[in-house]
Formats: sequence, C-alpha cells, structure tokens
Amino acid sequence: MITRRAILAAALLPAARLRAQTRVERWDVHDVNLDGPRDGNPFLDVRLSATFRNQHRAVEVDGFYDGNGAYKVRFSPDSEGEWSYTTRSNRRELDGKTGSFACTRPAASNHGPVGVRNTFHFGYADGKPYFPFGTTCYAWTHQPDPLQQQTIETLRTAPFNKMRMCVFPKWYAFNRDEPRLLPFPRSGSENDYTRFVPEFWHNLETRVQQLQSMGIEADLILFHPYDHWGYALMPPEVDERYLRYAVARLAAYRNVWWSVANEWDLVKGKKPSDWDNYFRILQTADPYSRLRGIHHSRVMYDHGKAWVTHASIQGDDFAKTPEWRDTWRKPVVWDECKYEGNIPQRWGDISAQEMTRRFWLGTVYGGYVGHGETYLEPKDILWWSKGGVLHGDSPKRIAFLRSIIESGPPDGLAPIPNAYYPAAAKAGEYYLYYLDYHQPERANFDLPAEAKFEADVIDPWAMTIARSPGTYSGKFELKMPGRPGMAVRFRKVA
Amino acid sequence: MITRRAILAAALLPAARLRAQTRVERWDVHDVNLDGPRDGNPFLDVRLSATFRNQHRAVEVDGFYDGNGAYKVRFSPDSEGEWSYTTRSNRRELDGKTGSFACTRPAASNHGPVGVRNTFHFGYADGKPYFPFGTTCYAWTHQPDPLQQQTIETLRTAPFNKMRMCVFPKWYAFNRDEPRLLPFPRSGSENDYTRFVPEFWHNLETRVQQLQSMGIEADLILFHPYDHWGYALMPPEVDERYLRYAVARLAAYRNVWWSVANEWDLVKGKKPSDWDNYFRILQTADPYSRLRGIHHSRVMYDHGKAWVTHASIQGDDFAKTPEWRDTWRKPVVWDECKYEGNIPQRWGDISAQEMTRRFWLGTVYGGYVGHGETYLEPKDILWWSKGGVLHGDSPKRIAFLRSIIESGPPDGLAPIPNAYYPAAAKAGEYYLYYLDYHQPERANFDLPAEAKFEADVIDPWAMTIARSPGTYSGKFELKMPGRPGMAVRFRKVA
Repeated sequence: MITRRAILAAALLPAARLRAQTRVERWDVHDVNLDGPRDGNPFLDVRLSATFRNQHRAVEVDGFYDGNGAYKVRFSPDSEGEWSYTTRSNRRELDGKTGSFACTRPAASNHGPVGVRNTFHFGYADGKPYFPFGTTCYAWTHQPDPLQQQTIETLRTAPFNKMRMCVFPKWYAFNRDEPRLLPFPRSGSENDYTRFVPEFWHNLETRVQQLQSMGIEADLILFHPYDHWGYALMPPEVDERYLRYAVARLAAYRNVWWSVANEWDLVKGKKPSDWDNYFRILQTADPYSRLRGIHHSRVMYDHGKAWVTHASIQGDDFAKTPEWRDTWRKPVVWDECKYEGNIPQRWGDISAQEMTRRFWLGTVYGGYVGHGETYLEPKDILWWSKGGVLHGDSPKRIAFLRSIIESGPPDGLAPIPNAYYPAAAKAGEYYLYYLDYHQPERANFDLPAEAKFEADVIDPWAMTIARSPGTYSGKFELKMPGRPGMAVRFRKVA
Repeated sequence: MITRRAILAAALLPAARLRAQTRVERWDVHDVNLDGPRDGNPFLDVRLSATFRNQHRAVEVDGFYDGNGAYKVRFSPDSEGEWSYTTRSNRRELDGKTGSFACTRPAASNHGPVGVRNTFHFGYADGKPYFPFGTTCYAWTHQPDPLQQQTIETLRTAPFNKMRMCVFPKWYAFNRDEPRLLPFPRSGSENDYTRFVPEFWHNLETRVQQLQSMGIEADLILFHPYDHWGYALMPPEVDERYLRYAVARLAAYRNVWWSVANEWDLVKGKKPSDWDNYFRILQTADPYSRLRGIHHSRVMYDHGKAWVTHASIQGDDFAKTPEWRDTWRKPVVWDECKYEGNIPQRWGDISAQEMTRRFWLGTVYGGYVGHGETYLEPKDILWWSKGGVLHGDSPKRIAFLRSIIESGPPDGLAPIPNAYYPAAAKAGEYYLYYLDYHQPERANFDLPAEAKFEADVIDPWAMTIARSPGTYSGKFELKMPGRPGMAVRFRKVA
C-alpha cells in the first residue's frame, strides 16, 4: 500500500516530474508538506497559506504548523483535473513553493461532502441523497484509545450516519476524567493558548477520517459550556486562532460539519455577537463552506441568519417543524430530543419506545432526528458522551426507519399541512403517515384521486411492513391492526 | 314502601295536620303537586311558582306543567328544619296554596350537592371531598329502554362519578337513530316549541335520579351542534323557555351540573353573547346555583367570566393546567381528552395506555380528567354516545387512580411549579409524581428537609403500589424500576 504520506512527500519534488504520479481523488485530501522553522513560536510567528489553481479558479487555503518543524497546507479538491499550487509565507523557506497534482474520479464509496439540497434536505456532492440519522458521543475522542476504538467498532454496525462530537473535552456529570491529550499545552491549571498540541489534533483527525470511512459525518462542536479547563471563555483572539487552526486542519475532510456550539446559551461570559463572529470566522476561513449550525438549550439562536446552513434543534415539539421550515427555509435537524437511558437526569431517561416515537414524529413533520443514549454503566461509560457500546433498543428501530426513508423519494419529504395524522410526502407519489397513540380499526386517508397507490402498514417497533391488499385513491378507509404506534406508507403504482 | 307520590299527595292537605308526617331529607327533592287547568296551552298560559321558607330565608322556585292537568313545584331543601311554602300563579286554582314539611338529616349515602371548594377543587355539601372522575355518554337517555338500563348496570361497577350527557338527542356519525321520545312535540319535521313532551322529561329525570343513587353527578349538556331536529337553532324565546323548564324540572336533583354547551363554538347561528345570556338565565332561574360550565371545540369560552364555576376543557395540553388555574382561579376539568377506541375519527382512537397516561398527566398538573370510549360495535353502540357496556382497558386504571386520589389529601392537590417531573402536592404532606416516558434507574426528588416521607412506587398500568424501604427527606435519589410510565407517591410519616 502506498501511504498518503509517501505520495505527499513525493509532491514536494518539482511538479513537472511528478505530474503523472501524484493523484488525489476528488473530495479527498491533499497535504502539502513543508519543512520549516522550529525557532520561536511557529504557531504565532509563522504565517503560511497556499493558492490552489484549477483552470480559471484559485482557492486560498491556510496552512498550519504541526510541530517538529513540519508545516502543512491541507486541501481537498472539488473538481477533477490538474491542480497546481503556490505557497505564501512570511518565512522564506516556506514561501513560493509550488507543486501540482491530478485530481481523479472519486472511488465508488466517495460521494463527496454533504450540502443542503432542495431547501429542506441534504445531499452528497455526487448527487446521492443524504438523510441524517445522527447520534451523539460528545467526548468520545477524549477517552482512552481502546475505548475510542470500541466506539469505532460499535459504529460499524450502528444505523448512524452523523456523529455530534466536541473538539474540546467535556467536564460534566459522568465525565470527570482528565484526558491524556488536550488541544493546548497545559501546566497545572495554566493553558498556553499560544500553542497547540499537535498530537491532540492528530488523534481528532484520525477519528474524523475513520468516521468518514464508515460514511459518518462528523458534526464537530467547536464550543460548549461543560468546561473546567477554560476553553469556554478564552480571550477573543484565542477563540479566533483556535477556530482558524481547526479549520486549517479539519475543513478539508469532506465529512466535517461545524456546530459552533452545544447549548450556546449556557456558555457564560460570551455575548450573542460573539457567536455571530464565530460564524463569520468560519465563513471566511473555510474554503469549502462546510455545513454550519448551532445548538441551544433554552434560548434559540436565530437560525434565519444567513450563515446558518441548517437549524440544529434541541427539544421535542416536533409539530413546530413545518412552521420553522417555512420561516427559515432550511433543513430542520432535531439533533437532541433527549436520550434513551435510565440516568437520574430527566433528559437522559426516556424509553426506547419514546425515542423511536420521536424519530417518527420528527420525520413525518418534515425534520431529521438525532439519537443519543444514556444507560448507566459500571464505569460511567455512557454512549452519549464517551461512546463504547450501545445498550438501547431504539437503534435497530432507527435503522428500520432509515431503510424506509432511504428507499423513499431521493429529494426528501415535505410535511402535509393539516394532515389527519401527521404525515410527510412527495406530493402525488409518496406519503408516509405516523399514527402515534391512535389505534383505529380503519383509518381515514385522503390521497390524490387521479392516481393509484399501494399501501403498506408499518409497525415501527416490531419493524414489520405489511402490504395491504388492493390499491387506493382519493378518500378511503384503510384496514389497520387496531393497535397504537403504527405508520402507513402509500406509494404510487407505476 | 311509601312512594314519594303518596307522601306528596298528603302534603296537599292542611299543613298543620301533616307536620309530623311529611319528611324530606336534606338535599333531597320535595315535589309540590297541584292539579290545574288543562285548557289552552298550559305550558305557555299558566305561570306557577312557590316561595319556600325556612326561618329567615325565602327561596323562590318556578313550577312546571307536567301534562294531564298535573303541575309541580320541585324543591330541594338545603337546611334541616321546618319549611313552609306558598304558591303563586296567574290561575286561581294554583295560587296561594300552602304547605310545609320537615327537612330531616340526610341518609348516610346523601352527601348533598357538589360545589367548588378550596378554589380549584370540589366537595359535597356535607364536607365529603368530591374528585371528578367522569365519563361521557352523550345520548344514552335517548336510546331504547333496555340499552339505557344496560348503561345503568355498567355504571354500577364502573369507576366514574360524573356523566356528561345531552338533554337533546344527538345526530352524528354512529348516531342516526330517531329516539322514541323528543323534548318537544314533533310532527314530520315540524317542532311545536310551545309545548314540551312530559314523558321525555320523566325519563330524563329517572335517569338523573338513577345516577344520583349510584353517586354519579349528571353533567347535563343543554345545547350542542349535533342536531337535525332544529334544537341547536331555536328562537331565543324558546331557548329561554327550554332552559327555564329544564331548571324547573331538574335543578332540584342534587347531582345536576349544567354544561351550557358541548362544543359551543361549533353551533352555527348563535352569537357569543347568546351563550352569556344562557348562563345568565341559569343563574337567575336555578335556586341552587348548580355548577355551570361550557365546553368548546377550537375556540375556548372565557372561563374567567364570573358565572362559570369551573373550566370544562377539551384538549390534551395538560401542562397548561397550572397557568389556567392561576388565571381563572377555578377548577380545571379536562372533560374531553379524546376517547379510548378504534374508530376512524382520530379523536376516538386513542389507546388505553394513552388514556391512562392522560388521566395521570391531567391529575399531576392540578386538573381533573374525564373518560370516553369509542370502540366499534356491530350495532354502533359506542359508549361515548349511547352507553351500553365498556370494552376498554383504561377504566380499571382510572379506578386505580381514583382510589389513590381519594385516599390522598381531602382538600385536593396543587401542581408544583417547575417540578423535575410533573407533580401535584399538598405542600409538606403529600406529593404525587408522574414520570410518563421517563425511565430512570434512580430518580431525583426534592422534598422538604424538615419532614420524613415514606415513598411508594406506583405502576399506573399494572396497578401496583410498592413501598420503598426507608424514609426520605430533602434532595435524594429514589430507586426506580427503570421502566417508563411510573408514578411515585410520598406521604409524610406521622
């Protein structure tokens, strides 16, 4: 196997000689590796960037210092063809370096980054739909290596394609461990905010790439209030340096999303305009415009602001989704609707049935719902924060729902206003109803009269799909099992 | 057995002779029976009332024509001791009649009428608490006799102590039968609003009395929109005559409540001020000031108006109860929170689990909840309207909740603001929590530190109560079964 490191080392040789050798998949990562000064404080003293050119386009990308005299400019090309670059630096040994590479057709498993599509939905850059079915392990990358590896193994067979995770470590109930690695050097209770700890960031990059290899988006939470190191209240210039360093290192990974905060309104000492400013920094620094959201506790950030790409919601009032879609004209992602579990905190003790119900409700109201789990564990390894293994009964039901949604209309579903039961549809073609606590023997439906539909009665808990005999049009009553928690799918007969 | 009729016939003899014989229990009914004119239209032409006197008090009561020359003034004395009366009429043969009776101590089963007590609660006149656990059979008194009798038999062992029922018959889905008796004479599609049909009213009185004998309050709905006879839109003078006739006949029964309307806002052709006027008529005509409410569909009547004794609510947003209590300073009764059943109408297809849940939620938020049932039945005999038998699984759970509430503080419970789980309490003495979809292994509670409480973990569905070992004070975690739908009761140790 030719490692990326080997390829990239080769890229430092004259471009003409290597044109045939250096190949980078579209949407994959190309690191320009440079040796540079170790004197002084390179994190503060050395400025480095590169301009990457493809035909008429020029993309400006900031580099970063990776310790031990190693400098990198990390880039992800979004177009196939020949790319060349020239570096720029305030240090002569890093300035004016040039190179090129061929951006090639992506592998079959590489669909590119996820972006907003069709106003309320998401899709990969190659056209494949992306329906978020996320989970949450806030601090999994701050755990001992074997536990991080166990989390990766769990995710291989879990139904999740998005992971909400914090860049900074977490200090909170069930989370009172000092991680081995921190983002900044720390001595006693003093942080050296003028430097970063490359090993911390290497680990984070590795985990982001492992998620990518499993088709999981990394929804990176940049600030949060569960802090005892000081990261929640750094000087503004450190916040900006931190954000720009994170972008320089991580934005090139195509599965990265930016979550500016978890529970932004619980972070004491920041002004509302500080949060606007973080968005502005991300917009300026990130050459790829990765997705940007912000998560709240009690006071919602104004998701209508132009720099917010999708609304990241905490709550369970799913019926609000249609109104929010109409107001913000953006996807609505219920990233936190409480956690399946049994801890004494009431946000972490909902049943698997209730979590399953919430996924269905959020879906039929036109949103996307995220999972979390908080079952007590002898060593306090709760999935919600540390990862490890899943104990709950909702994930397999989430997998079932995901399979239904992924086999449905690729452009996503829209909630039906005033539907008799909450429902989402692609009008005229596909209708998905969720009956929640209703248990009719025969249920009322009203479909377009001019088409014929086949009907499936779905049991979201038992995970069964039963085709109803015949076809259906207009107003009719459908025979139902007479028990609560059912769903019904109608698909137009070709 | 000496019938009331025999006693009352005797009451027409000179009072002095009968003082020892005519005895009426406190809060029971004394009919003054008079023979009078049959000519013309006695319903319109004859005015009759009586003044009942006890010590310094005089109570004015309207009489009514009962057909076949029979006139009655129906009275319920609220004080023990000697009562005398004098009639007044525009017809000489009914005017100036006098009589008296002795009002005696009530039987053990007679607790008097229910009134509002302790602002948000109810109690019988004799001091016994009354916690409403109602059900609904809108049109049960308009069904064939054997079905009415079956309803009575069902109610004997059902957990309900209030019945919502319409005076007028009902025309609606599952209700397309012409009743044998109607309140007004009808020929073809023509109503004779100048007369009443005494037999119709006799039957209604019989049913109200049967309910009374079983300890069930009769919440009589005076107007409703499910009409095809014309009763929903009669001339205003007929509305008033109807109300005054209903009051004259029925108000004396101590278990009568007035519900001015079911879904008042769905009755087309009436102005909001018409409803105010109906309340005013009831206030004027009813000597006993029986409880008065009004039920809505989408637009709530202003329950803050002085003549509304309690808020009769349709809906399921139980968390609003505390705010409404604070606003209206009246009891909040969730008379309609949908129906356990399986019909195609979504208001009539909720599961028994959901109905049970709703009873608990309404209770811990400081309200009272009413039941209804709509299971399909081969002859369209659905409990919600026609009565008959109960098919559902919620009634026995409602009985279980009722037993808990009736063994709790007699003055009722108040919701705890911002409780960690919804809870109602008598502060310092008794706390009832409902955990709904939460399933903690150990649950957080915060009780007064200065007292000791015993704890019971209650399973509202399994109907079990398990005493937790030890006593509890202040902030603590209680071991829980780790499954959803639990409740917890804390009682101060004596």
